[in-house]
Amino acid sequence: MNLRINGRIWLEADDRFFGVGRMELLEHIQQTGSINQAAKAMKMSYKRAWDLVQSMNTQAATPLVSTQTGGEKGGGAIVTEEGLKYLDHFRGLQERFLAFLEQETRQLPD
Amino acid sequence: MNLRINGRIWLEADDRFFGVGRMELLEHIQQTGSINQAAKAMKMSYKRAWDLVQSMNTQAATPLVSTQTGGEKGGGAIVTEEGLKYLDHFRGLQERFLAFLEQETRQLPD
Repeated sequence: MNLRINGRIWLEADDRFFGVGRMELLEHIQQTGSINQAAKAMKMSYKRAWDLVQSMNTQAATPLVSTQTGGEKGGGAIVTEEGLKYLDHFRGLQERFLAFLEQETRQLPD
Repeated sequence: MNLRINGRIWLEADDRFFGVGRMELLEHIQQTGSINQAAKAMKMSYKRAWDLVQSMNTQAATPLVSTQTGGEKGGGAIVTEEGLKYLDHFRGLQERFLAFLEQETRQLPD
């Protein structure tokens, strides 16, 4: 048996606020400037991506994603400073969690 | 927003092998000497509890739960030494994980 430890972590208040999926979604919004393109990159419906953004935006004191409607490109989305703050922090947290899992996997009984 | 970090960890090989639910199931089997009573204590069907036990027993080199059929009490179940080994290790691992979550929760950005 080639045993390893796996797991997931997330930030929550009353509801789930931030996790690996939302981290990846923000990364794609940052790269594409569009919730629609970010959703496509994650093979997720636009509605699902929009709901995730709304969940973060309504829970946080300041929105994590800012959306513009209209204009030549038909609107766009940017990750705000508040969004970058959580993105950066969660990346570090996830790295420390993976290090914890690796270290603990090495200490598993035979 | 009263933010905290939550999460789950588990041991896996090809399939899931051991996690919080299985830890609690083994604890109840240890206390009651019966898969049926352990299932009831966890408000779980007997089939579900039996399947979880079978999943652990067939993946491990040595069974984690030993069952006896027949006899005055109509059979029973005990947690083997192998089972106790994983139970003890996972308890410690889960404690260290909860400590990790607490420490990281204290370091969350405002």
